[in-house]
Amino acid sequence: MDSQELLSLCRRRGFLWPAYDIYGGFAGFYDYGPLGAALKSNIEEHWRRLYVHEEGFQELVCPLIAPEPVFEASGHLDAFADMYVECEGCGETHRADHLAAGMHDNPASLSEEELGKLLGDNGVKCPSCGGALTPPRRFNLMFKTPVGAGSAKPGYLRPETAQGMFVNFSQVYRYGREKLPVGAVQIGRAFRNEISPRQGLLRLREFSLMEAEVFFHPERKTWPRYDRVKDEKLPLLPDGGSVGEMSLSDAVGKGVIANEALAYFIWLTLRFASEIGLDRRRVRFRQHARDEMAHYASDCWDFEAETGYGWVELVGVADRGCYDVQAHLRHSGADLTAFEPFDEPREATEEVVRPRFDVMGKLFKGRTKAIAEELSKLSPEEVRGTEEVGVVVGDEVFKVPSSCFEVASATRKVAGEKFVPHVIEPAYGVDRILYCLLEHAYRKDGDYVTLSLKGSVAPIKAGVFPLMARDGLDGVAMEIRETLAVAGIAAYFDDAGSIGRRYARMDEVGTPCCVTIDYQTKEDGTVTLRDRDTKEQKRVEGERVAAAVAEAVARSSPAASGGGM
Amino acid sequence: MDSQELLSLCRRRGFLWPAYDIYGGFAGFYDYGPLGAALKSNIEEHWRRLYVHEEGFQELVCPLIAPEPVFEASGHLDAFADMYVECEGCGETHRADHLAAGMHDNPASLSEEELGKLLGDNGVKCPSCGGALTPPRRFNLMFKTPVGAGSAKPGYLRPETAQGMFVNFSQVYRYGREKLPVGAVQIGRAFRNEISPRQGLLRLREFSLMEAEVFFHPERKTWPRYDRVKDEKLPLLPDGGSVGEMSLSDAVGKGVIANEALAYFIWLTLRFASEIGLDRRRVRFRQHARDEMAHYASDCWDFEAETGYGWVELVGVADRGCYDVQAHLRHSGADLTAFEPFDEPREATEEVVRPRFDVMGKLFKGRTKAIAEELSKLSPEEVRGTEEVGVVVGDEVFKVPSSCFEVASATRKVAGEKFVPHVIEPAYGVDRILYCLLEHAYRKDGDYVTLSLKGSVAPIKAGVFPLMARDGLDGVAMEIRETLAVAGIAAYFDDAGSIGRRYARMDEVGTPCCVTIDYQTKEDGTVTLRDRDTKEQKRVEGERVAAAVAEAVARSSPAASGGGM
Repeated sequence: MDSQELLSLCRRRGFLWPAYDIYGGFAGFYDYGPLGAALKSNIEEHWRRLYVHEEGFQELVCPLIAPEPVFEASGHLDAFADMYVECEGCGETHRADHLAAGMHDNPASLSEEELGKLLGDNGVKCPSCGGALTPPRRFNLMFKTPVGAGSAKPGYLRPETAQGMFVNFSQVYRYGREKLPVGAVQIGRAFRNEISPRQGLLRLREFSLMEAEVFFHPERKTWPRYDRVKDEKLPLLPDGGSVGEMSLSDAVGKGVIANEALAYFIWLTLRFASEIGLDRRRVRFRQHARDEMAHYASDCWDFEAETGYGWVELVGVADRGCYDVQAHLRHSGADLTAFEPFDEPREATEEVVRPRFDVMGKLFKGRTKAIAEELSKLSPEEVRGTEEVGVVVGDEVFKVPSSCFEVASATRKVAGEKFVPHVIEPAYGVDRILYCLLEHAYRKDGDYVTLSLKGSVAPIKAGVFPLMARDGLDGVAMEIRETLAVAGIAAYFDDAGSIGRRYARMDEVGTPCCVTIDYQTKEDGTVTLRDRDTKEQKRVEGERVAAAVAEAVARSSPAASGGGM
Repeated sequence: MDSQELLSLCRRRGFLWPAYDIYGGFAGFYDYGPLGAALKSNIEEHWRRLYVHEEGFQELVCPLIAPEPVFEASGHLDAFADMYVECEGCGETHRADHLAAGMHDNPASLSEEELGKLLGDNGVKCPSCGGALTPPRRFNLMFKTPVGAGSAKPGYLRPETAQGMFVNFSQVYRYGREKLPVGAVQIGRAFRNEISPRQGLLRLREFSLMEAEVFFHPERKTWPRYDRVKDEKLPLLPDGGSVGEMSLSDAVGKGVIANEALAYFIWLTLRFASEIGLDRRRVRFRQHARDEMAHYASDCWDFEAETGYGWVELVGVADRGCYDVQAHLRHSGADLTAFEPFDEPREATEEVVRPRFDVMGKLFKGRTKAIAEELSKLSPEEVRGTEEVGVVVGDEVFKVPSSCFEVASATRKVAGEKFVPHVIEPAYGVDRILYCLLEHAYRKDGDYVTLSLKGSVAPIKAGVFPLMARDGLDGVAMEIRETLAVAGIAAYFDDAGSIGRRYARMDEVGTPCCVTIDYQTKEDGTVTLRDRDTKEQKRVEGERVAAAVAEAVARSSPAASGGGM
């Protein structure tokens, strides 16, 4: 399909358009208009329903600005960078690794010097004007902004929502009654100061993410509802293999997917995609190659959809090991561990400082007990090799010679183990999902355009039309629109042009049904309900309009897309 | 009430807490935990229902980063600033005008020099350490960040969501079928780089707004639904007057509120506040004094709530005249006007260039008609006082002497008028509303705390408890929780501790009802439904749980707050 045609529809009908166009635009930023905002909100709401309401994830809302230590710990401050070159003629900036495409297997892995040499050897010039290029420079992709007046602290706009959940692990763990697995989600904006953003909604400087972080015991990566779905099929493209359908249990059993939890969230992604209306025949899960994954990840799958731009990554589902929480634990010193009791307390042997009362009694008389108590609080490391240790009791300091104590083995009961949780992260890009949804829903029959959006995400659920804008028909139609609004159903009143033209306007923006009020309505109170996909019309009682529209919305599915998943 | 006690509850139970506390915090930033995020989302959703679904406003979603010309036009680049001083001892920064409180009527209106002198004359030192202070400096409160690599453009984090709607006026107007009034809304983050943020949620550097911009014909500031509510009462505190109840029509009739549209949106604010559960006896609308308003505003009312911090502004409703759209029109050159047809086309007289065919015919023969046509396209300004004008026809240039034309009056039909729309802006601060809602809902009876939140905003709608965590009761309870979740009802499973303790935990976070599964459930399928406010318990059929909970949620209102508005 022609993506320009779709983008033109999006702009004309109020889905979305490049932001700040009265000021000549601002590359990498888009506005959502009324229909786009509703579609986006419906996608997010459906995701929230699955993750928060059904699966029981905790939703957090963290600030978009974060202080520097967060990104020192996460590694973004060092590693979240691309290289760019600037044209000495026209001043335009370009991604240096993109200019080297085809000249090297992985140009992004080169140093600035190596990449500069590669571009120079190949005589690469500015693609816009043919001018000479500066040597490549590394550029951190986080937006930076000072926080506070005077000696301000550096702040950064978050490049992902994930860090807000990692730094809050203890809160999430406590709210979840200190049981694992436990999951948190965030839905919200993230930022990436792209060097040269192109491709509309697919590469934005400001975008929306829906991310989930699931915390696990390292040895128990499964999910309570896994068993319910383990026989469902997934379209998998394993690293080094080819696309095929495989059940979750087969994939885990054969080691294609690393563990049951990862398989479950891959399946949940497919369920979500299906329920919002992506075309099952044009999606797949592609496993990352070993050298494509972050070094700490043990398995990672991209959910991809086929579009006019090729296969596009919409979601990443990764097993990130203990990397994230460990990094913040080390960097902050906070105790970001979980605790799991053993079934039975276990005995553990450890070294302790044991006072020798026989020796001490002679030296310290009546103070022996108090001093011995303090002594036994010391660790073996603090006393080993010393001839004398100082012990404070009340206001007094006592010098205790090494003859007064010994380091000895002792056994104690241990209730359980402390550990750093592992994380599985499903991360969804909202804008890309929205764009692909529009592409997959776009149908053209001659010049007639229909967006076959699922009722659950359609921005408008019902068009409401008076046959004529007179004789009281318009008043009745406005009342029906309001009845629907109060019932929480987004309805659109339209009294302009022929009914056919009004149907066409609603079909073009994906509205699943239309309600027409005509002269018969005045006689018997019935209205005409018309279905977008079947074009069928039937009369329903006026009182039943809200219920009938709700049924039509629930029923509506993109018939041409080949059914469910 | 004790705000520390409330904030401690908020932290302990997962409503909210200062952000990034594992890194020592970051002043002016808060995290919302699972309960706070749900409460916030419910407040926003209720607002969306009123403004978008009922009133028909268009929702937009614009980027948070905007380019510089937007804020040159809006005036933020020049005027959105406070003055600060920095302590030469401890380095802390303070709002300079706050330090001068009580020394001058309006210290913020002084120049840096004047304010510096005032502080010096009064011997003001650092409030934290007593150290000497630097002279006051002006500080722009927008967060600034470069966009792009290389020669980057300046970007700013928006200080309000409003500008995204002003710059998109043409889109909004077109989507609304070019009729006024038309309204747009945004719900989302905004930023303010406060010099010294304190007071928890009341003064944040990053916060959420719900803003509406309603565009009007300058002479017709009313709203279709005004007549329905004009007899409703409002608690008004007019400039120079005292608080009293007054109907909308009285307030407009007596000139207390400037126009019907402003009165309508003041009323809608009160309706919203009532429906989410603010205490009607602890809210009021305070009119801005003349010298408090922006110079372009003609009337402005703050919706205030009484809290432990005193009266706090939650919403501002202002008539901003044509200032905003006019500013962007001038700055961008884009045609941000509306057009209104006259009932009948009117005649307008104007000067035109009229060719004299008699003279021209002799000079230009067969080309006369084509040249005359071009000539009549010129404006009087272009030809006045010239002896000869050049006219292009096809590839040829003809020199036309002034004897060939005259400037004459002509009448033409004018279909309507073009004008810059006026704006009324209701702007709601979400975080402040959320905080006041918690304060107004907080009830303490001995040590027993109940949050008497309205069902519509309560983060959890129902607690679901098995009487015992055995004998299959827990399985049934988990199924009921899931049934509720699938029905879109946020439910919380709890099997820990006595039933009384579990009720207490739910009361403390504002859950309107609880469902208990006991041994009788296994016999007859009924469960116990317990109401938060009345403490009444009754048995309902298991199949009816979702419906019964929905009824209880709809019914629940803060009984102690004195009823509706």
